[in-house]
Amino acid sequence: MESISIGLLGLGTVGSGVVKIIENHQDKLCHQIGCPVKVKKALVLDLEKQRELELDPEILTLNPEEVLLDPEIDIIVEVMGGIEETKEYLIQALEQKKHIVTANKDLMALHGPELLDVASKNQCDLFYEASVAGGIPILRSLVDGLASDRITKMMGIVNGTTNFILTKMSKEGRTFDDVLAEAQRLGYAEADPEADVGGLDAARKMAILSTLGFSMNVDLADVKVKGITEVSGEDLHYGEQFGYTMKLIGVAHREGEKVEVSVQPTLLESKHPLASVNDEYNAVYVYGEAVGETMFYGPGAGSLPTATAIVSDLVGIMKNMRLGVNGKSAILPEFPKKLKEDHEIFSKYFLRLRVKDEVGVLAKITSIFSNYGVSFEKILQNPLEENGFSEIVIVTHGESLYNHEKVLQELNDYQFVQSIESSYRVEGGNVHEMARSVVSV
Amino acid sequence: MESISIGLLGLGTVGSGVVKIIENHQDKLCHQIGCPVKVKKALVLDLEKQRELELDPEILTLNPEEVLLDPEIDIIVEVMGGIEETKEYLIQALEQKKHIVTANKDLMALHGPELLDVASKNQCDLFYEASVAGGIPILRSLVDGLASDRITKMMGIVNGTTNFILTKMSKEGRTFDDVLAEAQRLGYAEADPEADVGGLDAARKMAILSTLGFSMNVDLADVKVKGITEVSGEDLHYGEQFGYTMKLIGVAHREGEKVEVSVQPTLLESKHPLASVNDEYNAVYVYGEAVGETMFYGPGAGSLPTATAIVSDLVGIMKNMRLGVNGKSAILPEFPKKLKEDHEIFSKYFLRLRVKDEVGVLAKITSIFSNYGVSFEKILQNPLEENGFSEIVIVTHGESLYNHEKVLQELNDYQFVQSIESSYRVEGGNVHEMARSVVSV
Repeated sequence: MESISIGLLGLGTVGSGVVKIIENHQDKLCHQIGCPVKVKKALVLDLEKQRELELDPEILTLNPEEVLLDPEIDIIVEVMGGIEETKEYLIQALEQKKHIVTANKDLMALHGPELLDVASKNQCDLFYEASVAGGIPILRSLVDGLASDRITKMMGIVNGTTNFILTKMSKEGRTFDDVLAEAQRLGYAEADPEADVGGLDAARKMAILSTLGFSMNVDLADVKVKGITEVSGEDLHYGEQFGYTMKLIGVAHREGEKVEVSVQPTLLESKHPLASVNDEYNAVYVYGEAVGETMFYGPGAGSLPTATAIVSDLVGIMKNMRLGVNGKSAILPEFPKKLKEDHEIFSKYFLRLRVKDEVGVLAKITSIFSNYGVSFEKILQNPLEENGFSEIVIVTHGESLYNHEKVLQELNDYQFVQSIESSYRVEGGNVHEMARSVVSV
Repeated sequence: MESISIGLLGLGTVGSGVVKIIENHQDKLCHQIGCPVKVKKALVLDLEKQRELELDPEILTLNPEEVLLDPEIDIIVEVMGGIEETKEYLIQALEQKKHIVTANKDLMALHGPELLDVASKNQCDLFYEASVAGGIPILRSLVDGLASDRITKMMGIVNGTTNFILTKMSKEGRTFDDVLAEAQRLGYAEADPEADVGGLDAARKMAILSTLGFSMNVDLADVKVKGITEVSGEDLHYGEQFGYTMKLIGVAHREGEKVEVSVQPTLLESKHPLASVNDEYNAVYVYGEAVGETMFYGPGAGSLPTATAIVSDLVGIMKNMRLGVNGKSAILPEFPKKLKEDHEIFSKYFLRLRVKDEVGVLAKITSIFSNYGVSFEKILQNPLEENGFSEIVIVTHGESLYNHEKVLQELNDYQFVQSIESSYRVEGGNVHEMARSVVSV
């Protein structure tokens, strides 16, 4: 092989970072791969735009076919974003026997298994490390570990914007709106923050992680999602009092052959390793049957970390090219998808209620829980300033989501409960005990 | 290839774990590698010993040559420990064109580059992921990242025993001796704990990490080592007051072409991700020029995590065998070794002095520091119960190790300083600022 040619779809900050790394590490890359690497074409939206990069203007094109159909291009790096049109481009490229590196989580969460299948049928590699937590080599670590272990649980802080917001709200006592505005000023949050704060971005990443980690075709629609917009200072305050830290946690949990995948604001035991992941950082905690607890921490986004992940994928593909083994390393879903029902999803819950302060109210509330077999781990009652009302904060022992929702419904219907202020899942307890007891290889 | 045969040197808990994983994951391994894998021979010390494993007695042997010279054996898994004799065995195996997986940090820290060289000359793979932090795929992550990035700094909590001891001392206010005794009862510390508490075990792992991460032949003798035996409750207490957590930290730091590698009890800013790594857990924090901060967390030892790492290495070798590319993936040291001099090693320091309480003493002490250009970040003076004495606690701004030692010497010679109670390196400040400012690809 004389040289390897790369075509870029998109040349924003990530794409430019890829070009810079390839230029600056040319010697090292050449040493590892055995031949030079060059960027041949890049699809852009505007040929005249001022760019930091000094590039031969011949490289830029407005016509996707000049990238997708160029017979000299071996690998396509997709950093343009978008879903349906982008998918068509990538399928076209795969049919031209071009390998693909993509950082596109929206696309992979919706069409990952289908695209991997097209890649496999064309003996092509499709690598997507950068689509989940850019600076963390989590997909590669999962693939390596899967050979000799089986994953029971993954928990991820996989959205930097929401982690930044919750960290500032917790540590500085500020409101959601106030911190969101700062995040937007700093460029950590989009002008339209809905995909981040609503949990959709995290849900996409959890769909990708679950599909790979459980070897099961988990769709984005299978992920239960709740965002952080309703998280209040009171919730953070009570959480802290009880020894918890509020995080937007993606949970993917397998028991037997059935899985549950969800994203929601969660009160995490403060001693859990994820509880110390602050600011815009990301981390993925993985529990494997044999290896026990591991956690991978790093920047979740940013042009250089993402570009680095893309170049690592490029190196993987180029090594496979040299060895002539492309299209063989993809792990296609091996198990049929089986999702847990609500009565099979167990967790502890935190609840905050506003109730009328009358004789017998607490007894009645307690009986609503106990009718569903739910007992309390912690309970706290505080009188409220408004006369005749008090606030009750409860942490339950493990209960099913089905029962939890029944309890919420009955509480809501009970005349002396003025409002259910909040309800959060609680995670992270007894991690070490679990690590020591669940051992089966 | 009809099947791949493995020979084991050693069949303790780790070796038995490897056998169990190979048996229980036979289908998955076979699917990945394309042929069955079997354990053909295992060198043991006692043929009659009761074992948990049910093994064909034909597999066991007391004669190393039955493993090393068996022409049917493709890969040797070394889990017997030891250094010189073991090295000879491995060289013999490599000369027989057998690939090697080893978990032996003592051996790799002392003779790693030499063994890798012999492996390379024989077109053999020598993989050693399990030698550093068993459950954490840190070596693989370094290798992957190195293709497109350059490492500036690694900091590791790479010894579970000392982390367990320091965690208990910090959180429960117990003494070193008391916690060490508990660690021995729990099996976290050896009957002879010297290699752990003296820092040697951590130093071995830092030598291995530095050699790989900086692509430079860093010897064990190049690592400056100090253990935790002198860490006292007072130090932990003052550290906490100042916002630090005491950890035994291995530091490997490159500036330009020169590196510094050391292991010492260190006061770490409590917000640093390593500060929350507790109990017997390990973690390696890596700062790469492009990717920024990442951290890998997991069990540092334990038979199943270590066995899992070994099997991942086995899978890597077996894939290479199928591809016919063994002996090509080793990264041999690329740069000449250049160690920093003491005047080039910069750090903040924490110091605790016991001084006579007289007029002018603090002024004199301050002048000793300022004569070497060292200023204070924090200072605290407490009267001691013993009349006429007080304790001075200082955190300096960055200073060179050379100057720090000169200061210590002058303090020691000064008549009003009764004793220098402790002196620790301080790490972890301004991590995020650093992450944002050091960007060059």
